[in-house]
Amino acid sequence: MKRKLLILLFLVNNIALFAQLKEQQFFKEVYNSALTNSKCYSWLDYLSNTIGSRLSGSTGAEKAVQYTKTQMETLGFDKVYLQEVMVPHWVRGKKETAYIQDNKTQIKVSICALGGSIATPKKGIIAEVIEVHSLNELKDLGIEKIKGKIVFYNRPMDPEKLDTFEAYFQAGDQRRAGAIEAVKYGAVGTIVRSLNLRLDDFPHAGGQSYGDLPEEKYIPAAAISTNGAELLSKTLKSNPNLKFYFKQSCQTLPDVLSYNVIGELKGTEHPENIMVVGGHLDSWDLADGSHDDGAGVVQSMEVMNIFKNLNYKPKNTLRVVLFMNEENGGEGGAKYEEVSKQNQENHIFALESDSGGFTPRGFTIDCDEINFIRIQGFKKLFEPYLIHSFTVGEGGADIELLTSKKIIKAGLKPDSQRYFDYHHAANDKFDAINKRELELGAATMAAFVYIIDQKGIE
Amino acid sequence: MKRKLLILLFLVNNIALFAQLKEQQFFKEVYNSALTNSKCYSWLDYLSNTIGSRLSGSTGAEKAVQYTKTQMETLGFDKVYLQEVMVPHWVRGKKETAYIQDNKTQIKVSICALGGSIATPKKGIIAEVIEVHSLNELKDLGIEKIKGKIVFYNRPMDPEKLDTFEAYFQAGDQRRAGAIEAVKYGAVGTIVRSLNLRLDDFPHAGGQSYGDLPEEKYIPAAAISTNGAELLSKTLKSNPNLKFYFKQSCQTLPDVLSYNVIGELKGTEHPENIMVVGGHLDSWDLADGSHDDGAGVVQSMEVMNIFKNLNYKPKNTLRVVLFMNEENGGEGGAKYEEVSKQNQENHIFALESDSGGFTPRGFTIDCDEINFIRIQGFKKLFEPYLIHSFTVGEGGADIELLTSKKIIKAGLKPDSQRYFDYHHAANDKFDAINKRELELGAATMAAFVYIIDQKGIE
Repeated sequence: MKRKLLILLFLVNNIALFAQLKEQQFFKEVYNSALTNSKCYSWLDYLSNTIGSRLSGSTGAEKAVQYTKTQMETLGFDKVYLQEVMVPHWVRGKKETAYIQDNKTQIKVSICALGGSIATPKKGIIAEVIEVHSLNELKDLGIEKIKGKIVFYNRPMDPEKLDTFEAYFQAGDQRRAGAIEAVKYGAVGTIVRSLNLRLDDFPHAGGQSYGDLPEEKYIPAAAISTNGAELLSKTLKSNPNLKFYFKQSCQTLPDVLSYNVIGELKGTEHPENIMVVGGHLDSWDLADGSHDDGAGVVQSMEVMNIFKNLNYKPKNTLRVVLFMNEENGGEGGAKYEEVSKQNQENHIFALESDSGGFTPRGFTIDCDEINFIRIQGFKKLFEPYLIHSFTVGEGGADIELLTSKKIIKAGLKPDSQRYFDYHHAANDKFDAINKRELELGAATMAAFVYIIDQKGIE
Repeated sequence: MKRKLLILLFLVNNIALFAQLKEQQFFKEVYNSALTNSKCYSWLDYLSNTIGSRLSGSTGAEKAVQYTKTQMETLGFDKVYLQEVMVPHWVRGKKETAYIQDNKTQIKVSICALGGSIATPKKGIIAEVIEVHSLNELKDLGIEKIKGKIVFYNRPMDPEKLDTFEAYFQAGDQRRAGAIEAVKYGAVGTIVRSLNLRLDDFPHAGGQSYGDLPEEKYIPAAAISTNGAELLSKTLKSNPNLKFYFKQSCQTLPDVLSYNVIGELKGTEHPENIMVVGGHLDSWDLADGSHDDGAGVVQSMEVMNIFKNLNYKPKNTLRVVLFMNEENGGEGGAKYEEVSKQNQENHIFALESDSGGFTPRGFTIDCDEINFIRIQGFKKLFEPYLIHSFTVGEGGADIELLTSKKIIKAGLKPDSQRYFDYHHAANDKFDAINKRELELGAATMAAFVYIIDQKGIE
């Protein structure tokens, strides 16, 4: 009996060792494929430099749908199709202008309208400015001090946060809800410090919402560059009565029909279990959105390309989903979930890349405790590729709504230090992308999909 | 007795816990200081944008000595001094020119003379080209196929290496020893593919040596951009008899007097034990050397600035050493060791930053097994700052020669994916530096110095 047990133990150990070796070997092949035989960089070159910006409803967005569909059709999916989704159509109009009126001096500053904002009157707005550092501060100031003025939100992102996304979410309330809050106190417009950790002249776009406010109460909202914010704040100290002028001509047009682009490869063993890998096709309009989220799009496609190169057929169904309208509505993600629910699909895994194309460091993971612990057990496989970080966190905005009996949602976590230098700004362009960093991100995603495909969910 | 033991255990555990908390707290303060109150970025701005390139013997190098000495004098050292060292003085002369002569077509390509190379004759050299991928290949080809030709070394850096420095050292033999090897077979010059993982038009400088070769046997050696190398290789395939022309006017002038810049703070408990933190002041001449090694210089100075801000007085003597002449001679490092030996000094720790100013990932460590294991025990303290990698490896070229009874040598290990896009090339400039990444590197160095200072060496 004891001998049998020993033999069994020996077998189990050696099978485990063999399995581990097999996985190590596959990881190596995944990374080598990405670093020597990938298409993601040239896809991104085309998306960024030939198509350009891709805000929902724009011709860029439509071209991106067609281009990625055509490219996906070369990757060996069982089917590639478009999923219809109605999306908002906001347009910026003419380039915004703004200046500080300091007594008789006009000092130009860089601003951009926030997504969803209304235009100013054609002549622009000029008003006194009240500087605040939080939404709460408005309450203390009250109508008396705010009415008729432009509210200037100037709380910087917290430089002490190692993960710059934390700083982004904390400071982001000023952008997202600044206007709706300022309306309550009679403000005539809002200017928000750009969500950027460095000092430069780029205004950073991004969404804001008027919520349930009746349309006649809307006020125009814009972002100012960090240098502009510093200057405005400094000038206010010496002249609290200065005025700020800005003019923007953005507007919201009727919703338009657009698409999620989906490639599907049926699983060889559990076709009923679906693994989603995706990024979002749309981008803000000020640049080509190479980091946000061109990178995530081409990395998701590259996952399939790597599997094709290695002739790997997943046990579970793999879907690469390029979502539309993450930036100003989230309609693509919502539609995908809606259709999935109608079809009673079972998703076991959803992985999004929407944090830039920089060197990958790990994943944020949203799942139950058992699967979270199991995932920690995969760490050793990733270490040779300098992937160390598997922490609790959200997967991504496009997969947020996905529900299943059991699902692991994850977000690729690249190095975050440079991301907000580019995020939603005119410099989020192809030259800010490093080919190897992009490829390593794709490989890290493919490796994670592979290991979840192999090990399943519990 | 049992009760006493329990109390003792309780005390030991709680003292350990208290110590751990103290260290965690100090790490937090170090990183916060670097991210909110550092000088390293503005120092680098001055070094890069006001002083510029700093090759040994140049006026830039001398200005950098004076500037950093003056800045170091503000940081609270017990003394700041210059250590004399004679350094080589190689100058590039006029910008090089080169073209491929493909039948009657001349195709211009970007080259630069390698450091230490001789000039071509004034009219330049034109000769047939033999392409090889390793030094060994020359042996197989023999004199017959090489004599009178230009040897073109075209083995790329290996893209499969995750650590790009590994790829650099492997491919680097072509640059370092390509000329001396080609001379043996009667070559008239050498052209080496730039040590760059991406395809672009920048030629990358770097040292090469003729070793013991008599001067009359020297042949000119240059680097060609990766795009140029690809083009030359492709054109050779269609026309093996094409000729390559290049002209360079570099020369080696007599050695000149220069300096290591040293700041010293006496240890409060063990002044006889020295901890060195450093980078190298000199840079190649094609750019301002912001990554190589302006970053290492200002990060080393920032270590002292952080300690000053936190009012931390090290137990062991701290020396910040800015070495001269790492790039083409290593005389600064050699001189430091020579003087140290004369003075019978005892170094317990030496830390160099000379791998770029990108997001820090960890350290390479060169020490005995016991101390290596002890250092692994510090990992947990670094994890919140996304520092995970503590691997066996060299500390750095400037501290390589340092010997003591017991010494830990270490090199800061930043993310390496982008480094060779810039290394020794005309784009290694200030705009390739991210302020936060630079600061995090400085903080990571200060944290490591602190923990070694606290825990000592065994």
